[in-house]
Amino acid sequence: MLYDLSDRAQQVLARVQARVEDAIIPLEPAFAAAMKSPDRSWALMPELEALKHQSQKEGLWNLFLPDPERGAGFSNYEYAFMAEAMGRSLLAPEVFNCNAPDTGNMEVLHHYGNAEQQAQWLTLLLKGEIRSAFCMTEPDVASSDATNMQATVRLDGNELVLNGRKWWSTGVAHPNCELLIFMGRSSDTGHRHRQHSMVLVPKNHPGVRVERLLSVFGSEHLPYGHGVVEFNQVRLPKTALLVGEGAGFEIAQGRLGPGRIHHAMRAIGAAERLLKMMIERGLERQAFGKQLIDLGGNRERIANHRMAINQARLLCLHTARIIDKHGVRKALSEVAQIKIVAANLMQQVADDAIQMYGGAGVDDALPLGEFWAAGRVLRLADGPDEVHRGTIAKLELKPYLDARK
Amino acid sequence: MLYDLSDRAQQVLARVQARVEDAIIPLEPAFAAAMKSPDRSWALMPELEALKHQSQKEGLWNLFLPDPERGAGFSNYEYAFMAEAMGRSLLAPEVFNCNAPDTGNMEVLHHYGNAEQQAQWLTLLLKGEIRSAFCMTEPDVASSDATNMQATVRLDGNELVLNGRKWWSTGVAHPNCELLIFMGRSSDTGHRHRQHSMVLVPKNHPGVRVERLLSVFGSEHLPYGHGVVEFNQVRLPKTALLVGEGAGFEIAQGRLGPGRIHHAMRAIGAAERLLKMMIERGLERQAFGKQLIDLGGNRERIANHRMAINQARLLCLHTARIIDKHGVRKALSEVAQIKIVAANLMQQVADDAIQMYGGAGVDDALPLGEFWAAGRVLRLADGPDEVHRGTIAKLELKPYLDARK
Amino acid sequence: MLYDLSDRAQQVLARVQARVEDAIIPLEPAFAAAMKSPDRSWALMPELEALKHQSQKEGLWNLFLPDPERGAGFSNYEYAFMAEAMGRSLLAPEVFNCNAPDTGNMEVLHHYGNAEQQAQWLTLLLKGEIRSAFCMTEPDVASSDATNMQATVRLDGNELVLNGRKWWSTGVAHPNCELLIFMGRSSDTGHRHRQHSMVLVPKNHPGVRVERLLSVFGSEHLPYGHGVVEFNQVRLPKTALLVGEGAGFEIAQGRLGPGRIHHAMRAIGAAERLLKMMIERGLERQAFGKQLIDLGGNRERIANHRMAINQARLLCLHTARIIDKHGVRKALSEVAQIKIVAANLMQQVADDAIQMYGGAGVDDALPLGEFWAAGRVLRLADGPDEVHRGTIAKLELKPYLDARK
Amino acid sequence: MLYDLSDRAQQVLARVQARVEDAIIPLEPAFAAAMKSPDRSWALMPELEALKHQSQKEGLWNLFLPDPERGAGFSNYEYAFMAEAMGRSLLAPEVFNCNAPDTGNMEVLHHYGNAEQQAQWLTLLLKGEIRSAFCMTEPDVASSDATNMQATVRLDGNELVLNGRKWWSTGVAHPNCELLIFMGRSSDTGHRHRQHSMVLVPKNHPGVRVERLLSVFGSEHLPYGHGVVEFNQVRLPKTALLVGEGAGFEIAQGRLGPGRIHHAMRAIGAAERLLKMMIERGLERQAFGKQLIDLGGNRERIANHRMAINQARLLCLHTARIIDKHGVRKALSEVAQIKIVAANLMQQVADDAIQMYGGAGVDDALPLGEFWAAGRVLRLADGPDEVHRGTIAKLELKPYLDARK
Repeated sequence: MLYDLSDRAQQVLARVQARVEDAIIPLEPAFAAAMKSPDRSWALMPELEALKHQSQKEGLWNLFLPDPERGAGFSNYEYAFMAEAMGRSLLAPEVFNCNAPDTGNMEVLHHYGNAEQQAQWLTLLLKGEIRSAFCMTEPDVASSDATNMQATVRLDGNELVLNGRKWWSTGVAHPNCELLIFMGRSSDTGHRHRQHSMVLVPKNHPGVRVERLLSVFGSEHLPYGHGVVEFNQVRLPKTALLVGEGAGFEIAQGRLGPGRIHHAMRAIGAAERLLKMMIERGLERQAFGKQLIDLGGNRERIANHRMAINQARLLCLHTARIIDKHGVRKALSEVAQIKIVAANLMQQVADDAIQMYGGAGVDDALPLGEFWAAGRVLRLADGPDEVHRGTIAKLELKPYLDARK
Repeated sequence: MLYDLSDRAQQVLARVQARVEDAIIPLEPAFAAAMKSPDRSWALMPELEALKHQSQKEGLWNLFLPDPERGAGFSNYEYAFMAEAMGRSLLAPEVFNCNAPDTGNMEVLHHYGNAEQQAQWLTLLLKGEIRSAFCMTEPDVASSDATNMQATVRLDGNELVLNGRKWWSTGVAHPNCELLIFMGRSSDTGHRHRQHSMVLVPKNHPGVRVERLLSVFGSEHLPYGHGVVEFNQVRLPKTALLVGEGAGFEIAQGRLGPGRIHHAMRAIGAAERLLKMMIERGLERQAFGKQLIDLGGNRERIANHRMAINQARLLCLHTARIIDKHGVRKALSEVAQIKIVAANLMQQVADDAIQMYGGAGVDDALPLGEFWAAGRVLRLADGPDEVHRGTIAKLELKPYLDARK
Repeated sequence: MLYDLSDRAQQVLARVQARVEDAIIPLEPAFAAAMKSPDRSWALMPELEALKHQSQKEGLWNLFLPDPERGAGFSNYEYAFMAEAMGRSLLAPEVFNCNAPDTGNMEVLHHYGNAEQQAQWLTLLLKGEIRSAFCMTEPDVASSDATNMQATVRLDGNELVLNGRKWWSTGVAHPNCELLIFMGRSSDTGHRHRQHSMVLVPKNHPGVRVERLLSVFGSEHLPYGHGVVEFNQVRLPKTALLVGEGAGFEIAQGRLGPGRIHHAMRAIGAAERLLKMMIERGLERQAFGKQLIDLGGNRERIANHRMAINQARLLCLHTARIIDKHGVRKALSEVAQIKIVAANLMQQVADDAIQMYGGAGVDDALPLGEFWAAGRVLRLADGPDEVHRGTIAKLELKPYLDARK
Repeated sequence: MLYDLSDRAQQVLARVQARVEDAIIPLEPAFAAAMKSPDRSWALMPELEALKHQSQKEGLWNLFLPDPERGAGFSNYEYAFMAEAMGRSLLAPEVFNCNAPDTGNMEVLHHYGNAEQQAQWLTLLLKGEIRSAFCMTEPDVASSDATNMQATVRLDGNELVLNGRKWWSTGVAHPNCELLIFMGRSSDTGHRHRQHSMVLVPKNHPGVRVERLLSVFGSEHLPYGHGVVEFNQVRLPKTALLVGEGAGFEIAQGRLGPGRIHHAMRAIGAAERLLKMMIERGLERQAFGKQLIDLGGNRERIANHRMAINQARLLCLHTARIIDKHGVRKALSEVAQIKIVAANLMQQVADDAIQMYGGAGVDDALPLGEFWAAGRVLRLADGPDEVHRGTIAKLELKPYLDARK
């Protein structure tokens, strides 16, 4: 192996890779068919549930959580390789209890939850017995600027009262979804990064209503779903508050670093699979007396993708190492960078792979279109490219501006 | 108006534009909902059918056909502006009986059909009473090289026998679809452009079977549908043959020139609408204390799209003029050029418009994702970009190679 | 011919094309050698001067000036084709007395000069007996925002007093340069577009000093030269003022429209020649058992350049037509568009042509590097791309903002 | 520091960085002026020579050579950081005796020279007392395909006879240049990678003639120069042969791996300096009421360059590590990748930096144009991008093709 990786991580990685290739990818067509069936009545897919239990039994479970007690004890750097392996199939992350937004939510509970909150929610999430959603983005404002947020958390005696509308609450349609982490404005004064709070909300609670599921390029991404969720006078005890009033921003920031590595490495895994599919098609088909791969600029595109993938992977791994060694505060620019780079890469490789497949490339019988759309969505999820470019530029200019003071 | 356009064309154009803006675009959400309804039982949408009848009554009908008896008598140049107007909504072309593949099929019947064939099929198509599909591309070979074609047309006494599998037969699911134009290999010898024939096939005919509808980025594009169609020992009288044995290539070539102008101008119309939506969002939303339009490179993107749209439009109009004045043989490179330029433009503007809308951009409640996917498909339909780049390069090199002979 | 063009314009165009191919391009290597000679003592090249006299004698002269008395009487649209032909060689424009900045300066004198000023300067410029420079851009401020200008024109009794430093005063080193058109701030109050004035300055006048010639990518572009020019207490009679105090902006705006068409069409001519050279090299050389043109994405690049050139040309011609029919005020966005599009095109085609030539591409024995650098410079001359993108976006947004008022 | 680096390497790196910033960069304008002076009579610049001696004395010398006896004993990974530091000024590498092509030539002599050859040439090169050139590329064939080579090495008794024309023999004009490494065809039969030989040729030897120096974008890159060199019946004893007949390809391959890391890291250093200059200008200048950096997409460009630079650096470092650990045979694709990525990056950042500087960006008073041209040349030196893309694609496809056998 050309990368430094501990023996234990290498062994687990090999097992994850084998599981994805041998068991999960072959299940994709049946899964797609099952989710499309009009009479599926929200049932999970038994074969996938079986794989999940097998992973749990064999210890291929919670690999994302560096804590050795609750998780697998891998560093972000080590887990990054596994995330890449899982990224090769959109079905894979959940099989290892490593899918967003549950991973981020588990991290939040692990780092910011008190013992009671952890007992109530974290234990079940770690076991994969329940799922969760994260309710932050809002339909009516540009949520990329979080200070625009309109939802509110108000204190009424010993109770919290939540109001607002959230969307892109991914996972909210999952039959096992029990927990929503809600972020809202708890104060209109004080430092603008101390005005928000986070609250743990049981999904089936008076005042919580899933208005509709968002359809994304023709898919509701079942069984997860992306909900528009209304919170209408939702009343909860104060103990549902995470950390305390005004801690919302701090928690949100802490949540994102590792999560972006996961997203990015999965995108890279997807890109690798797409490149592989692209090459296979290019070698299989003939036109104008040649293999497709030998026509026009196809080999150049293969080379360009190889360069782009390798560079994106190294940037993610480098970012993971900085977080492991120095903490996420030292990697703010890098975290923003991988967010942009990996999502665009995934979309671009998918686009070219589609082109190599011709008509088959846009037929949903192959997963190319789904990867393409997923890459596209990833350029917006957790903040659009443009916001992250702004962050990178701001951090780049900072030393110059500091020197001028 | 900054372009030369006859008064009659300007008047019709203005009426088409008004119809699209005032009547068709407002119908989009209801249409999308209607087509998604699980119990729609293939019904057409009454409101859209009403618009169609109104257009027919008012003479906004068959605008694409330059023949003044059968069509509206506009030149390709004149119709190009109307096609752009129709491109602003994916629903619009049919309202004016100007939607692919019927337009191309009507042109084929007009130019290559004999009187009997025209009486049987063209009259009904021109009235909009039936619809049609074009069965050329095949799933098992790289159809961008048409000499790869495997389907066959064999003569058996006075009968033709058709066998083969076709896909991307667009329109085949439409309740009114009655006619399939089928292309197959009728000989394995002779000039390679004289080995194929075209046959008029009634859709409901023994041996014709729609295996399944292709799902494209989550949509079956109802009520049209893209079918995988099996032709299994389909027997027809020899009179179903267009022109004669071996004329398939010639007809296919003649079919494409004007059709590509239509496609390209519609894509440009789509791009204009997408740019408009992008600007509107950019002016509506605020983030980080500014209008979105004033953040980062957004204004540069607006400027880039304006330049790209203007150039693409001028290239299409120029191509239309050449075809009008000198015939399609003088515009082979230009026709290939507009095919590439317009489809990529549409995809790119849609991509940036999505980005400006954030989460709303990938939600199917807005048509942005559908336009994006349609642009993507257009880069493959009627031959992938790469094949057309090959054509352009070949024509570009021809004088140099001729000079060396 | 695929474009509408009067017979007279077609005939002149053909003669210009022939002169460029047969007489001017063959002179390039000798010209380059002559200009590099360390003992050239600012001599012009006799062969080029002879070509110039021949053009003048034959009426291939002042083709850029639409005025039929003073110029050749061609519309901007007609001249655009000739400008393209001249753009194929960096030496060509002067041969037809059509080189910047003299063309722009002649237009200024023609439109804004009074009879006396015209008698003194315009006549000689039209005869090609003197040359001129335009002194606007300044080294110490971002001149793309003209309101930054620091040079001053002050009234002192009946005299004007000029002070300031200008650079990129192209043509100032030419042995025949006699006239500088100077722009400076004449007032610090009033409307910000009425604070500047333009003055006609004899080059050899007390207080005018060429500090140095700018070296651009290793070339001083002799015999023209780009000077840094100091104006130190330059005193001139009031009659040297163009139009009147405060008219500087108005004149500068009027000067630019046609000039940008000339620049853009020349850039397109350059791109055509570069594409031709690229193809010729691609067909001449062999590597890895194939002609270079058949390796990798080379044919795709040829196709891409063909599409880009055609589109850029159509955009320029369209802009020329608008100016001819409706005046430059109706073409503000288009003028900015062609400025960007053509310069970038020229640089890009040159870049790819260089790549096709390998080591020979960066050797100054061929003109590829010079075209590449000229394209690069053109992205800055008369305002950087970014400023023009800003203009386009502003004009694009205007109707939306007006509607909101 | 965010990268793993030994203390010794960090200390040397810091000293190199300081030398470059404090002593070498400030010397650039004087050096440029000195090299342009028409009466320089090939003199070296005394201040630069002094810096060189200082570096030698202080042990900042031959840092590129991993051999601890002859060089500084740094791994390729460690030296990569120093190469980046040197890349910030085009003058820096020679100050540390680390400039191409001497570094590659020293590596060749170190790895492939026999004791006698090393005594004659390597010792002097390591001391910096002589310089050398590499004569491989030829003007008359596409040298990117080395099997095209036409120059010959023939055995005539105990003598070698060399004939042929080479170009891009960089360094051949340097007053201290004493050695040419010549590659020519020694056989027309046998394996195509065993038909070439390398010979050590004294520069001042009968039959060796520098025809002319290539002028690259207006510069002869003095004091190094890129020569067109004629070898006309050059006779040398057989002992001048490196390794033996037919070893030319093997030596050429071995020469390139580390050299490409050096080139690439220097290009990255250049890109970092260019980005710094771009930011500084963006913060200094005002236009339209804002700092340039805050106009249009400038911040996005800063962010894009930061992402690209970081990724390119990581790819180079990763490649260096593979070479250090596993040898260059395991890094063939990566070596090709960094060659492409770094050169394009350097050109691109230079291009944008030029744009930010406006007119000053293309004036040779600043080094921007020189960096831009150097990046451009680097896309051709040691093989054009396209050849390296071909290599990457070939290696990418290999396992698929092997699996099909």
